[in-house]
Order: sequence, then C-alpha cells, then structure tokens
Amino acid sequence: MRRTLTEKLLAAHAVSGEAKTGSIVQCRVDLALANDITAPLAVKSFRAMGATQVFDKNKVALVMDHFTPNRDIASAEQVRGVREFAREMGVVHYYEGGDCGVEHALLPELGLVGPGDVVVGADSHTCTYGALGAFATGMGSTDVAGAMVLGETWFKVPGAIRVTIKGELAPWVGAKDLILRLIGEIGVAGARYRALEFDGPVVDDLSVEGRMTMANMAIEAGGKVGLFAADDKTLEYCAAHNRPGAEKIAADEGAEYEREIIIDVTGMTPRVAVPHLPENVKGVEECKGTTIDQVVIGSCTNGRIEDLREAATVLGGRKVSKNVRAIILPATPKIWQQAMDEGLFSVFMDAGCVVGPPTCGPCLGGHMGILGKGERAIATTNRNFKGRMGHLESEVYLAGPAVAAASAVAGEIVHPDAL
Amino acid sequence: MRRTLTEKLLAAHAVSGEAKTGSIVQCRVDLALANDITAPLAVKSFRAMGATQVFDKNKVALVMDHFTPNRDIASAEQVRGVREFAREMGVVHYYEGGDCGVEHALLPELGLVGPGDVVVGADSHTCTYGALGAFATGMGSTDVAGAMVLGETWFKVPGAIRVTIKGELAPWVGAKDLILRLIGEIGVAGARYRALEFDGPVVDDLSVEGRMTMANMAIEAGGKVGLFAADDKTLEYCAAHNRPGAEKIAADEGAEYEREIIIDVTGMTPRVAVPHLPENVKGVEECKGTTIDQVVIGSCTNGRIEDLREAATVLGGRKVSKNVRAIILPATPKIWQQAMDEGLFSVFMDAGCVVGPPTCGPCLGGHMGILGKGERAIATTNRNFKGRMGHLESEVYLAGPAVAAASAVAGEIVHPDAL
Repeated sequence: MRRTLTEKLLAAHAVSGEAKTGSIVQCRVDLALANDITAPLAVKSFRAMGATQVFDKNKVALVMDHFTPNRDIASAEQVRGVREFAREMGVVHYYEGGDCGVEHALLPELGLVGPGDVVVGADSHTCTYGALGAFATGMGSTDVAGAMVLGETWFKVPGAIRVTIKGELAPWVGAKDLILRLIGEIGVAGARYRALEFDGPVVDDLSVEGRMTMANMAIEAGGKVGLFAADDKTLEYCAAHNRPGAEKIAADEGAEYEREIIIDVTGMTPRVAVPHLPENVKGVEECKGTTIDQVVIGSCTNGRIEDLREAATVLGGRKVSKNVRAIILPATPKIWQQAMDEGLFSVFMDAGCVVGPPTCGPCLGGHMGILGKGERAIATTNRNFKGRMGHLESEVYLAGPAVAAASAVAGEIVHPDAL
Repeated sequence: MRRTLTEKLLAAHAVSGEAKTGSIVQCRVDLALANDITAPLAVKSFRAMGATQVFDKNKVALVMDHFTPNRDIASAEQVRGVREFAREMGVVHYYEGGDCGVEHALLPELGLVGPGDVVVGADSHTCTYGALGAFATGMGSTDVAGAMVLGETWFKVPGAIRVTIKGELAPWVGAKDLILRLIGEIGVAGARYRALEFDGPVVDDLSVEGRMTMANMAIEAGGKVGLFAADDKTLEYCAAHNRPGAEKIAADEGAEYEREIIIDVTGMTPRVAVPHLPENVKGVEECKGTTIDQVVIGSCTNGRIEDLREAATVLGGRKVSKNVRAIILPATPKIWQQAMDEGLFSVFMDAGCVVGPPTCGPCLGGHMGILGKGERAIATTNRNFKGRMGHLESEVYLAGPAVAAASAVAGEIVHPDAL
C-alpha cells in the first residue's frame, strides 16, 4: 500500500485501529503540550480524571509563554497553578521565565519534537512541528489532559491534500507569502480536518524555519496538520538542535490524495491578509496607502532568527515612522541572544523599534502591544480575526517580516522595494 | 539672608509671594509632566478648564511608560487619548514606543530637566530630578493640568531637613542603601511636606545617577522634594546629556534648617526594606533564609546603566536559581542599547534572566512580572506596599541591584559576598 505521510506517521504510532484515511486509530503520543492559557484547564481535567501522575515525566511540556512575564494577577495565578502541578508531577519540561520562549519555536529548538513524532498540544498552532515531519496537532485541553495521563490519544485519520509548490520566488517573497497564497486560494475552511502535505521544488529549497512558518498556519486553512517530508535539511536542523539520530520520512510515491493543488509562484508579489480573515489575501501592491499604527514582528509564525534577519535587512539604516510603534519579539531566549550577537538588535534600536522578551504577547491580544479603537497593525503573526490584537474596532494585516518592516518605515503598507 | 536650596530655587521662579519657608509662592514652571496613567486625567481637567493650548509646546512632557507596550485595550485607549491630545496641542515631548523610557530616567537623559529648574509632574517620583538641583515634585493630575495651561503653579515653601551623610561605604553598599537607611530612621512620614537637602562627603562622591536613586525615594519619606546641590559632577552629567550651559547651585552656607540629620555609614551592610513599608529597613543579614520567586531590576529608582553594571558584576558566570524569574528592565532605550553594547545583556541572558523593554511594568503592579498569591519578590524598585506588585498576599522586598542580583542566584535574599 502506498501511504500518505499522514498515514505513515500515525501507523507507526498505532496501538489499535488501522491508520488509513477515514479510520479511527488509537496512537501513542511522543509529547503532550500545554501553555499558560490551556494548561490550567488541562490540569483541572487531569485532576478531575483522578490521575495522580503523568504517563512520562519527559514527554509532557508546559510552556508559560502567552501572558508572561506575568501580565496581571490572573495570569500570575494561572502560571502559579501550572508551576505547582509541574513540581508535583516532576514534569521535566516546564518552562517559565529566562528559559522560556514561544512554545512552537522553543520545542523544536530543544529537540523535543522531531521527524516521525506524534505530538498533541493544547494550542492550535501545534501543527508547526509538521515542518519537521511530525504529526502534530492542536486539541482541546481536556483531550490533552487525557494524553498526559495515558500517553495515547485517538484520531480520525485525516484525508490528505497534496500541495505542490513550484516556480521562482521573487525577492522579498518567502514562506509566509506561500502559506498566505494557499489560504487565499482554498479559504479558511479549505483544508478542514484534512492533512496538508507540502512538496515541490520551492518547498525543498525552503529552510526548516521557513517550513515551520508554513506548517504553523495549516490550521488557518482548517488543516489538522501541515506536513513536510523530513529530508537532509531536516536532519541537519535536528542535529544542530538537540535531536541527534533523526531519520528521514516522506510520503510514498504514488500515495492517494483527496486533492492535489499545484501552485506556481513565479511572478508572485509579497502577500498580505487583510482584515478580518487569513483568507483575505491580496498582493502588497493592492494595500498601498493603508496607514498603520503598529508593527509586530515575532510570534510562532515569524519570530525565528531568519525572520529577524530579514526585518533587519529592511530596517538597516532606516527609521521607523514617528506614527508607528514597531515591536520586535524574538521567539526564544536563544533566538534573542543570537539576534543580539549578530547585531540585529543594534539595527532595530537604531531604527527606533521596541525589542521585547520572548512572548506570544500581542498576537492573541495578550499584552505587549494591544491596539486601541480604530488602530491598525501589520504583523507577522497568524490571525487577523476581528479584535484579535485588541479593540473590536482595530485591524490586523498579516504579512511576512520584510513587508512588516518596510511598512514600519513608511507608516503604511508597502513593498520593501518601494522604500 | 542665607537660604536653603529649596528657597533659592523657588525664589528664582517666583512671580508673586515670597519664597520663604512656610509662605505661599506662585512660581513659573520649567516643565509639566504626565504619564499614561495620569495624563488622561490631566487632559480631562485641561479640557474641563476650557483650555485650548498648552502654555509652551516645548515645556510639556507626556511619557507613555507605565503600561506600555500597551498591556490591554484599556491602556491602549488611555495612550490613544493622550497621543491625540499631544498631536492636537503640538506637544513636542510626547514619548511612546521606540523612543520612550521610564519618565524619570528619560527626561534627565534628554536634558529636559536640569539644575535650577522647577518641575511639576503628575507622578509621585518626579522628585527624582532633585538629584540635578531641580525643585521637582509630584502633584495631582488636575494641578499639573493647571500648570500645563498657565506655566505656573503655587507652592507652600517647604521647610528643609538637612541630611548629611559621612563615613566609609562598604563594598556593595550604594545609593539605594543610603536612602533606605534614611527612610528606616525617619519613617515614611518623617519628611512629610518637607524638603530633604542632602550633603556630606558620601553624597559628594556619589555619581549623579546614584543621587537620582536617592532623590527618587524622597517621597517614600513623605518629602516634597529631595535636593542635591548641582556641582561639577552635575554639570558634567548635563553636558553629556543634552543640557549644555547648566550652572551650579547650592544652599547658602549657614542656611536655616528645620532639622539636621547626620548619618555615618561606616560599617553599614546593604539595606533591605521588608514588607509592607519602605521604612521597614533591615540589614541584608537579617533577611537570611527569605526565599524568593521573582527578582526585578529596573524602574526609575534603579534602572540606569550603573545599576545594570552592578547587577551584571554579581551575575557574571552565575546562574539564576531555577525557582526564580529574574526580570531586567533597563529604564530607557539608550540605557538598553548601552547595556547591550557593554555586554551586560550577554551576562544576563547567560545567567537565565528575562530582559524586557523600558517600562515601569511590575514596579506598580502594571505588567511584565506580576506576583501571584503567596509569591515573594526582591526588587530594586521604590515601594513595597501590600499588593504593590500583584496579589494582595504577595510580598515585595526592596534592595539595591547587587543584593537583588545575588538573591536571584541564591533563590533567597543574600549579601553578594555570601554567594
């Protein structure tokens, strides 16, 4: 049988049922994850189940990244409860404070997720790890609590959509533009409970970080997962990030897909998702004249070192518009330090940016850059739902780091070449 | 007539009345200041007065530093209102985002306050500028709104308390310890509506930054102002910080004081103010065994470059305790960048600290490090009132940067030499 990557990954973890599209399969879980918003709910469910220990102290990750450093008493209390749970259970991978970063950037860096894994997380962007060839998906906190107890969970094996990307990328066009392009074409429900499996020469050429940007937003098309084959680049990434001995994995040649989409990116300009859905995708040139009040560069989508380098390339020797707050949030302490060491922070500070600590922060309207009434932001984040970054009458435009940085300088949405 | 520094400063600004202790005097104001918490109230009063312009567009400062980068919709709305006011009035010194820092660190750096000035601010720690030989004091936002309209305000000329500090400072004992020592001796009402005028060899030897740390906490003894003579060091500071042409000013020899306090610091160990008042001052050795959950190094009291250097000296080659979140908040973008360039951030990151952007943040329970129930922090901030940094059942201990940094490593309050 020729299998999709989805089927292969789940089959390798099946404890009962057949890992075939449409079937229900019970699978071992390599990691169960929650954050400071969802872990309190998961802990509550965990206790309600009468559980007294986690299935494996090394296979549960609790990352306090959304409202931290604690934004208020409520968030401090949430974190305190999770911290106490982590200590009680002896959870090894509890992250808070100086060793904490945005979960979906942190866990790959630490080698806690890798090729062949099945990962469930009480966070919708858990799908990010698909970039490494892991079946990784977001679930409700109660289901994740179940996985924390049992080390297993069930899935209905999703049908797969093959997305082949070919053509020539123009300058300043990258991973974020690719995934926005797809979401623009298929819509926010276009891959509902489907596995997106990416391939093609453009994807092969992408860095693993770029693939993470794409996998991260699979959920914005409704995808259960967004998968990439683990190739030589993946193994290099793993070797450099605390995950030695990782192995390649890919879909079988001739596997059966529900749908095949071919995208030719030749001639494509940078993409921007305009309010209030990630599917409202336009070319940056169509957004000309859209003034902005804030720029956010960071998040689990685009807060990695490559993203910061791209932003710095645009901001170098330039100044942020006096009408704009430009907020840079490197996604992990390691990225933070690397960006500093590479001189990117000097560029950002000289340009007049604010450099913050690793946090999800404004992406979800958490803190560290919330919008007031009528304010407009362009952000490298993943969602532009109404009120997502603050006031119900504020607006979020989604783009890649280059366009976000250029827009910070111009005070309106622009192509980097237009500066 | 031999005059106190207080009398001399007010006399030079008097437009009516006699600037003599106990008298009411109407004075010109060189700068009127408000922040993102108080400016919205000041703006409301300003409009209620029917005012249509500020007295001088160059002599009003609006610094959005407390809840920024915007912590939530409410703070975003506060800032938005002030920003619109600033634009409408053409206020030159409006600070938000990348050019913004903690007001009382930012304004001296920008040269907006200096020797001989009279400054009123809708923030209690406006007294910080007394370090430069300015009569600077906190007022309610309505009074500050009045000053913004008229460029004048009235004072009852405060009687002065002379505080002479002599002796030999032990290692790791500095400005914060001196002011805590004084507050411990005279209490939080010990200088109520009085001017504290500092002198003596220890004060002469202090840097201007150290004097700011002391002047900053004059209000914690109830003081109307905390004054230092402007000497050669002050003029050097001013020349280096956008304030050329500053002139020396000091109390007259033989001026009449209400009270004279002499403090001999020889043999004094670092001081710690224990909950819940700044007057509850003990030697660090008396706090042995007090475990902590969080350390905050920053604020208008101790967020300057010297403070960060001191913290880095202690943290160099060491690790923050796994039970502690250590949060470093440089007070201005310039300090932030300087600390980075000097390699201090590398020390902080290697030690496991979080480095945040310039913000008042946790000092006032604002954001960026709020305490949960039962949690305990040691902080270089200025107030340890009940619930000041978060939950009503949390605790704040006040200390200088060296003790705070050492405690971050030990996980409990310790003298740096005890590491």
